[in-house]
Amino acid sequence: MKIKCGGGVVALSESQSEAQHPKIEDREPRKKKVVVLGTGWGATSFLKGLDASLYDVQVVSPRNYFAFTPLLPSVTCGTVEARSIVEPVRNIIKKTNGEIKFWEAECIKIDAADKKVLCRCNIENLVGSGEFSLDYDFLVVAVGAQVNTFNTPGVKENCHFLKDVEDAQKIRLSVIDCLEKAVLPSQSEEEQRSNLHFVVVGGGPTGVEFAAELHDYIQEDLIKLYPSVKDKVKITLIQSGDHILNMFDERISSFAEQKFTRDGIEVQTGCRVLSVNDQEITMKVKSTGSVCSVPHGLIVWSTGICTVPVIRDFMQEIGQAKRHVLATNEWLRVEGCENVYAIGDCSSINQRKIKDDIIDIFKAADKNNSGTLTIEEFQEVMDDIIVRYPQVEYYLKKKNILDLRVLWNDPQGNEREEIDIEGFKLALSLADSQVKSLPATAQVAAQQGAYLANCFNRIDHIEEHPEGPRRFTGSGHHNFRPFRYKHFGQFAPLGGEQAAAELPGDWVSIGHSTQWLWYSVYASKQVSWRTRYLVVSDWTRRFIFGRDSSRV
Amino acid sequence: MKIKCGGGVVALSESQSEAQHPKIEDREPRKKKVVVLGTGWGATSFLKGLDASLYDVQVVSPRNYFAFTPLLPSVTCGTVEARSIVEPVRNIIKKTNGEIKFWEAECIKIDAADKKVLCRCNIENLVGSGEFSLDYDFLVVAVGAQVNTFNTPGVKENCHFLKDVEDAQKIRLSVIDCLEKAVLPSQSEEEQRSNLHFVVVGGGPTGVEFAAELHDYIQEDLIKLYPSVKDKVKITLIQSGDHILNMFDERISSFAEQKFTRDGIEVQTGCRVLSVNDQEITMKVKSTGSVCSVPHGLIVWSTGICTVPVIRDFMQEIGQAKRHVLATNEWLRVEGCENVYAIGDCSSINQRKIKDDIIDIFKAADKNNSGTLTIEEFQEVMDDIIVRYPQVEYYLKKKNILDLRVLWNDPQGNEREEIDIEGFKLALSLADSQVKSLPATAQVAAQQGAYLANCFNRIDHIEEHPEGPRRFTGSGHHNFRPFRYKHFGQFAPLGGEQAAAELPGDWVSIGHSTQWLWYSVYASKQVSWRTRYLVVSDWTRRFIFGRDSSRV
Repeated sequence: MKIKCGGGVVALSESQSEAQHPKIEDREPRKKKVVVLGTGWGATSFLKGLDASLYDVQVVSPRNYFAFTPLLPSVTCGTVEARSIVEPVRNIIKKTNGEIKFWEAECIKIDAADKKVLCRCNIENLVGSGEFSLDYDFLVVAVGAQVNTFNTPGVKENCHFLKDVEDAQKIRLSVIDCLEKAVLPSQSEEEQRSNLHFVVVGGGPTGVEFAAELHDYIQEDLIKLYPSVKDKVKITLIQSGDHILNMFDERISSFAEQKFTRDGIEVQTGCRVLSVNDQEITMKVKSTGSVCSVPHGLIVWSTGICTVPVIRDFMQEIGQAKRHVLATNEWLRVEGCENVYAIGDCSSINQRKIKDDIIDIFKAADKNNSGTLTIEEFQEVMDDIIVRYPQVEYYLKKKNILDLRVLWNDPQGNEREEIDIEGFKLALSLADSQVKSLPATAQVAAQQGAYLANCFNRIDHIEEHPEGPRRFTGSGHHNFRPFRYKHFGQFAPLGGEQAAAELPGDWVSIGHSTQWLWYSVYASKQVSWRTRYLVVSDWTRRFIFGRDSSRV
Repeated sequence: MKIKCGGGVVALSESQSEAQHPKIEDREPRKKKVVVLGTGWGATSFLKGLDASLYDVQVVSPRNYFAFTPLLPSVTCGTVEARSIVEPVRNIIKKTNGEIKFWEAECIKIDAADKKVLCRCNIENLVGSGEFSLDYDFLVVAVGAQVNTFNTPGVKENCHFLKDVEDAQKIRLSVIDCLEKAVLPSQSEEEQRSNLHFVVVGGGPTGVEFAAELHDYIQEDLIKLYPSVKDKVKITLIQSGDHILNMFDERISSFAEQKFTRDGIEVQTGCRVLSVNDQEITMKVKSTGSVCSVPHGLIVWSTGICTVPVIRDFMQEIGQAKRHVLATNEWLRVEGCENVYAIGDCSSINQRKIKDDIIDIFKAADKNNSGTLTIEEFQEVMDDIIVRYPQVEYYLKKKNILDLRVLWNDPQGNEREEIDIEGFKLALSLADSQVKSLPATAQVAAQQGAYLANCFNRIDHIEEHPEGPRRFTGSGHHNFRPFRYKHFGQFAPLGGEQAAAELPGDWVSIGHSTQWLWYSVYASKQVSWRTRYLVVSDWTRRFIFGRDSSRV
């Protein structure tokens, strides 16, 4: 079978369309080499789950620590210290059963043809060479993504991002700088207002949480120390869409907008930023088409992510050049590439459409080759279909269909005895509308890492006892069940000890109690007892002493 | 009276030779303007002690926080967090009675002739001008000092210092960098050893404490995470003198040397650094004259201090160009300059010698103008002499003279009836050998700040009730007693939960219990409850979880 994939034509055998999960052969004394790129949510979750005694594992990342990124907005204002949300990778891998090696370096080239990665250490004043290459049998790519500036002029030079711990630390210093600048005796009132105009671009959870944190920091702590600037501080949140938090339930989104308006945070929806310089930000109001420039003291740019250069090069190499993001199959193996897996923000699962396999499914289900399916024949394949094509389950849920047999009815709702291929197509193809790419969140990356580690750990066992769904386009069963994301809900802290949460089952919770739920969930999700202790004691300290304003 | 002072001849009236302490006149509605330069130990202690309702106080410093500098070596290895030892100046001045203004800027020129200071704010991206000048009635200079490189080539570019919080934070990152560099797969064993060679230049308390902290950090925490480099780490302490900690009692100094040798820290005494580059440090062994170069991974330069540029310019302006450090009189007023006071590391008290005033003292004591003094006449002036010339007291203490009358004896030890001017000179002038400049420590600066604040607070009262010693070279009494330093002892932490302490009265204490004394003294000396809580919880955290090795 040949499929056209991006710019190149890639040959994929049937068996390759599922994950080539690693196999440790008993007679081979050498352990297979697993190279992991990254130390973020995906990589860390993979490393924590992996039985490292089975493999020779090497980890490469420019950061020697894992960072609990959902607390980054808290770090920008000192509600939580940077160090409280990081854990050295070496500490994490020390606990795994076996010796994992870690190198603080950046992967600058993935050479899938020769099965090796080229890495470079960027530490200053290195005695000797910092470049080295690592061979792999299996590569796990979890390098994350970078901030998308949409090529807006001046953004890279004049805006803060909020992706890394360093970003958050820089923002913290800059906020204090803005206040110190504004109170100088040489400042005119207009200059004061410019220095104290904080702009947040992007109305997603990160931007909103940062705006809320900043508002609290200024109102609860800084105003007391800089009383003269009390009425001159302004926070503006710029969102290109019609609403902030538009990935959340509408109730949350409108609650957030109302709360921000009450708090005096200006929410400018329907605005697109055209350019930024060191003094002003220029934007276009979509509805009126008018362009305006406003002076700023600090801008935090938080509009979304895009692919990092090394992945872009890699995609070129493996024929994914025309894609936006590295595509994997449902078992997280990179498409068009043997033995390379990708998890987290750097990749996206290319969920197979049911309509592409519908004929094979029909054939497999039609045991007696009658050209029609009975309901019994249908029910027999349905379980495997639901595992292999999760969109079917989403579709059923969305349509509130509890009994599968409803699908069996004809368009008029009448029960049918048998169904032919056209009817079968009609019954299932609508489900493909429910194919959605997963959000670029910590939760997804962590689940993918854990899933992959579990597969790597059980590879020997699974060869004999495959647990995956039936192969409709071949014989036998897939070794593993495909990765399935389980959504546990999402928080949006809104400041003033209030938060909003979207919980599974379309539950929405907003208010002070949700903030306490947020505290307990985030405390429990910490990667180590050390960071848990630190984060909780940071919160306690903040309640007792407030946030610190030293420029450190 | 004219005295030659440095390059210029400065006219000093009799009254000017003591402090011109500020006077608030009742009829004048405007409060006198006090400008304070600095936020270190001296300035903070002054601000904490000052009754700010009496003055219009403005503080200028490039750092908006006070740092508890004795804990800086602990910050380099993460035993204590940087933020735990800093307190915002605004928090400190908020508590004083009255409104103190603070500007985050650097004083770039002291214009003593026009009684104003020129300041510049160095914050990036400042909208508007960052330069401004402040008028003062009284100026308190407490800008501290900078590291003295003795013009050794390459030191500024390739060495770390340990004066500021930023310095300590940078060292912390660099230590981790060195380990990460050394474990890279591209490193030869020789390169590993170079990257892991930590050099400390300067065997004073700071250098010694840093070497000890680093040793503990590596042995207690890092070795576990970087087991492969265990035997390749080396710490070298270079000292130009014959012993480390040579300002301490000999017992402490030799204990420290022995402990370091046991710990594997190489102590190279009698070595002078000739130059440094990014790869090697070149030094000369004084005894043999041989020159050697050794590769290094990190150098911390901690050899002493020198005057900062703004003070050097100021000294030029007021005729102190040939001095090494800004001179004040015993009341902390800058010599040759009205209404300017200097405290802490930027200045040194120019203690008046008793032999310069001996004739006046004799005249004042000789009530009946007989040309000789009786013991009663002598005893009558002795109290004032001891207050005005503290060297007399040090001399008596050093010679174990408990009864003043011993001074009265002739050189053969026989009691005399009366004494003439030559005998009087002989009896007292030896005391001048005990004139010593104070060490550049936090303790001295803090006491000077508190002393000066006390003087500023009581200026109205003191005019009518002078409490200073008798003026021998004039009439009446000095308003205030001169500043007198009280030494409460000094610690030298030596690592491995051991410390040495030199306590008043030549007490020496060494060992684990001294480390606990150190903990309790340093906890109690914290500037706020917040920092006290943070420092103690940092220590606790370290005992439980060890030090963190994330590169944050």
